[in-house]
Amino acid sequence: MSRAPKSAKAADRLIYLPLGGAGEIGMNAYVYGYGAPGKERLIVVDLGVAFPDMDTTPGVDLILPDIAWLEARREQIDAVFITHAHEDHVGAVGHLYDRLRAPIYARKFTGALARMKLDEHGAPESALRIVEKWPETVTAGPFTVGFVPISHSIPESAGLVIDTPEGRVIHSGDFKIDETPVVGEAFDRALWAEVAKPGVKALVCDSTNVFSPLAGRSEGTLSPAIEQFLRDATGMVVATTFASNVARLKTIAVAAERAGRSICLLGRAMRKMVDTAQSTGLLPDFPATVSPEDAAGMPRQNVLLLVTGSQGERRAASAQLAQGSYLGLSLKEGDTFLFSSKIIPGNERGVIRIMNALSEKGVDVVDDDGGKYHVSGHANRPDLAEMHQIIKPQFLIPMHGEHRHLREHVKLGAETGLQGIVAVNGMMIDLSGNAPKVAEYIDTGRTYLDGTVQVGSMDGIVRDRIRMALNGHLTVTMLIDENDEPLGDPWVELMGLPEVGRSKAPLVDVIEQDLSQFVNRANAKTLRDEDKLDKELKRIARQTASAEIGKKPEVTVVVSRLS
Amino acid sequence: MSRAPKSAKAADRLIYLPLGGAGEIGMNAYVYGYGAPGKERLIVVDLGVAFPDMDTTPGVDLILPDIAWLEARREQIDAVFITHAHEDHVGAVGHLYDRLRAPIYARKFTGALARMKLDEHGAPESALRIVEKWPETVTAGPFTVGFVPISHSIPESAGLVIDTPEGRVIHSGDFKIDETPVVGEAFDRALWAEVAKPGVKALVCDSTNVFSPLAGRSEGTLSPAIEQFLRDATGMVVATTFASNVARLKTIAVAAERAGRSICLLGRAMRKMVDTAQSTGLLPDFPATVSPEDAAGMPRQNVLLLVTGSQGERRAASAQLAQGSYLGLSLKEGDTFLFSSKIIPGNERGVIRIMNALSEKGVDVVDDDGGKYHVSGHANRPDLAEMHQIIKPQFLIPMHGEHRHLREHVKLGAETGLQGIVAVNGMMIDLSGNAPKVAEYIDTGRTYLDGTVQVGSMDGIVRDRIRMALNGHLTVTMLIDENDEPLGDPWVELMGLPEVGRSKAPLVDVIEQDLSQFVNRANAKTLRDEDKLDKELKRIARQTASAEIGKKPEVTVVVSRLS
Repeated sequence: MSRAPKSAKAADRLIYLPLGGAGEIGMNAYVYGYGAPGKERLIVVDLGVAFPDMDTTPGVDLILPDIAWLEARREQIDAVFITHAHEDHVGAVGHLYDRLRAPIYARKFTGALARMKLDEHGAPESALRIVEKWPETVTAGPFTVGFVPISHSIPESAGLVIDTPEGRVIHSGDFKIDETPVVGEAFDRALWAEVAKPGVKALVCDSTNVFSPLAGRSEGTLSPAIEQFLRDATGMVVATTFASNVARLKTIAVAAERAGRSICLLGRAMRKMVDTAQSTGLLPDFPATVSPEDAAGMPRQNVLLLVTGSQGERRAASAQLAQGSYLGLSLKEGDTFLFSSKIIPGNERGVIRIMNALSEKGVDVVDDDGGKYHVSGHANRPDLAEMHQIIKPQFLIPMHGEHRHLREHVKLGAETGLQGIVAVNGMMIDLSGNAPKVAEYIDTGRTYLDGTVQVGSMDGIVRDRIRMALNGHLTVTMLIDENDEPLGDPWVELMGLPEVGRSKAPLVDVIEQDLSQFVNRANAKTLRDEDKLDKELKRIARQTASAEIGKKPEVTVVVSRLS
Repeated sequence: MSRAPKSAKAADRLIYLPLGGAGEIGMNAYVYGYGAPGKERLIVVDLGVAFPDMDTTPGVDLILPDIAWLEARREQIDAVFITHAHEDHVGAVGHLYDRLRAPIYARKFTGALARMKLDEHGAPESALRIVEKWPETVTAGPFTVGFVPISHSIPESAGLVIDTPEGRVIHSGDFKIDETPVVGEAFDRALWAEVAKPGVKALVCDSTNVFSPLAGRSEGTLSPAIEQFLRDATGMVVATTFASNVARLKTIAVAAERAGRSICLLGRAMRKMVDTAQSTGLLPDFPATVSPEDAAGMPRQNVLLLVTGSQGERRAASAQLAQGSYLGLSLKEGDTFLFSSKIIPGNERGVIRIMNALSEKGVDVVDDDGGKYHVSGHANRPDLAEMHQIIKPQFLIPMHGEHRHLREHVKLGAETGLQGIVAVNGMMIDLSGNAPKVAEYIDTGRTYLDGTVQVGSMDGIVRDRIRMALNGHLTVTMLIDENDEPLGDPWVELMGLPEVGRSKAPLVDVIEQDLSQFVNRANAKTLRDEDKLDKELKRIARQTASAEIGKKPEVTVVVSRLS
């Protein structure tokens, strides 16, 4: 492709297209392309997931990026690059591999976790390729891509250096400026300055913490407070954090060891992360752990449980310990529970539920406490400004943020004269010229993993479920004989609706009565007209329900015709 | 009742029974009783509501206290007292009046708002009685009750002084210690000390902010920052706060006037609150307001819209302005939106949705910003400790809080030697002796206003709706003829389910096929057995759905038998 004749070459362009993660936090998926419009060679950066909630996505198992646009251009894709192993960056690789079939590049630790996901979906061995860090690079069509270590809250995070015929692009990935990250590579100002030296066309940059005004703090600052906390506690201590925050796990485990406590890991994700970090050589000095059985037999003040469920997830170890017992371990008066984490907006109720369940057991709960026991993994406003100064890009393209974060990040860049643009999912940006500009709007949404099926967010399936949750459901059945005459009366069944309404008679009886009246008066034409009959039965059922109980249920009508 | 013979009198007791608001925040409803066990004369303090959410109460309109226990003892109730006009204290008076029919006592402003609710439910004029503040009192059976002004975030809040044969009880209501509350009565230490002087048996006390370590700040401190903010803003400014926070409305309106802006009130609740406060004489000096039409015609920098919807409510003025326009007013680049409020946990997503919609319009959003533009209406930890010291009660009974708040409040009291008890909804506490003790556990839950019907939270109605939201719904119908033979094949309809699953054929076809196979092989006995047939059809439909799409839907089966 890069050998096209000069005349065509003039029309080549460099594009950036977010399909997820821009205009939202989570579900990251970004496309870069280079070539003639419509014929660009493409690379994908990150394929993450978002998590469903009752408000908007009840019953959905996972939210995946809508890759219809990419799938239709599968032959143009040269590679997928994964910046780091957080679910919102790597979570969809297994679910989507078969639809793209492009090779996936990642560093060792990220790759080990991606491998498990790919295996679950039967992807071939060749699907995944492990890459060493910069200065090693991968050539993918017109792109040359390198993984530059960058500090974040999971090991081996990388910012990507993407060299293109239009110049160098830096895709930050999630990052913070942390010189003492406990596990993994420190933020290396000199390295980034060197990478930026030849000039950078665009910095595509994390925006998550743009509203946090103070400089971020290092993971390394937490250790003394956590150790003191573990020394002061008298009973058993349970600590929870994101399982993927391997540095935090180490900080807590080392502090526990110093405080004379044995460490017991609870929760599948917690054990998987520690195993993976150990097997990839990232945790050579993690303290020895004990089994739940052994922990249960020890004096309470000598035990530290390190558990999953910092976001109040109903089935995680935290929730189970709060509700009752877990693998033979249970909590009681005098024990302490530490949330070494922040609550992701939307998860407040779940976390509070656990805090109250612990309170009922007499367990003291300690949370973030103004940053004493938790630091964020993202660059705060002053750190973003510093990154801008290190990279000195021609364009600033904020990503990883809701609209308000992206907009604020553009404003922050403008303070030092950076040209920025708010690019949300589906906005294809042409980076070729002297200013970033919108080239096209791509129809894009979200894909729901619903049970085992991938469905579109606009398919109406989840909308119908939300309506049933709000309005209840009512089934109307009736029989029509060979002569198009009603056979017996319509029959009504309710689900999720009050049994008795305004007239104090059973709701089904009142609705059946109204339906019977209609059916008995209906003329043969109406009874023969399937659509009309269906519509009328639905209308009457809803109307009567509304009068009786003040709700208009969702209705399924089944008319059976004998013939 | 108070004239019972001495021998019976020996068994009389003073009880406290929370039916709402203890073990949760919201839906306040407390009972005090005095007399022989089971024959106590009763008074009720507050009848509030809680608000539903998609996670636990989809489709529910309001959550009311479960008053079954009270209703069964209606003849024993002498009065209902409402401490203040927040919905979580007064919201249920209209809905529940007819089930209790006890006279309701409130101060003037609270009463004016209660009156509207009672009128909506056709309660008689005599239902409501307006009370002057302490030292006026109301005698209700063995109780004498006075309304002592206390500062909070709504005018005319009162703590109740409840004199009983067992001594004085103080029921704080919601409160903070605020000496400059802008509207309404300042916290009066001397008055409370005087009230406490004869000795107080029990302080039943607000616990909402027990986890806030710093002393609370006065409403009066906000004014300079808000005025400066309104002066600095260049375009139109929209400010939102709780409509009931009349002091805040005044602070903002006066600041706007000083900053050269005309005030326009948007949202029904906002206008109702200002009207009620004005008509009850609480807002003699509220600045003049302009209509939306007039505001739309003014230079943008001369307008301040004061609007409802600080919690992201979908239909409130805030949401409508963020999405499009409202009463001819719309926002644009250069305008500013101020949240002079905090987000109540659980409402984060709704508020963030509005912030992003505003960002898309180019509107700058400013929120609480570390307390610069909002202060809480509840006493923080040091203020609670001060209240304990002013009242010096024999017992401390924390209320208005989740379990963790109540427990922490008991611990706070214990620091100065107070005897406390964690009493959650349904725990009847005997206050008669030398220590508070649990007398009985009352079965109590929540009542849902579902459309126009009151249903019990344990009735399974909402549970069925949640299940449909998670699992979708499937209808199976089939006909059986006069000879108990199947007539045609079973018929399947889906709602909220993917149309195609694993086998790439329509899901309805696959399920119908499996059902047909079963029906055709079923013996006459099975086909005659209504329960068994129903159960089998359900089982097969769920099993096939599970194999096809990985979900087990809720199923309605209708078998029509010709006879």
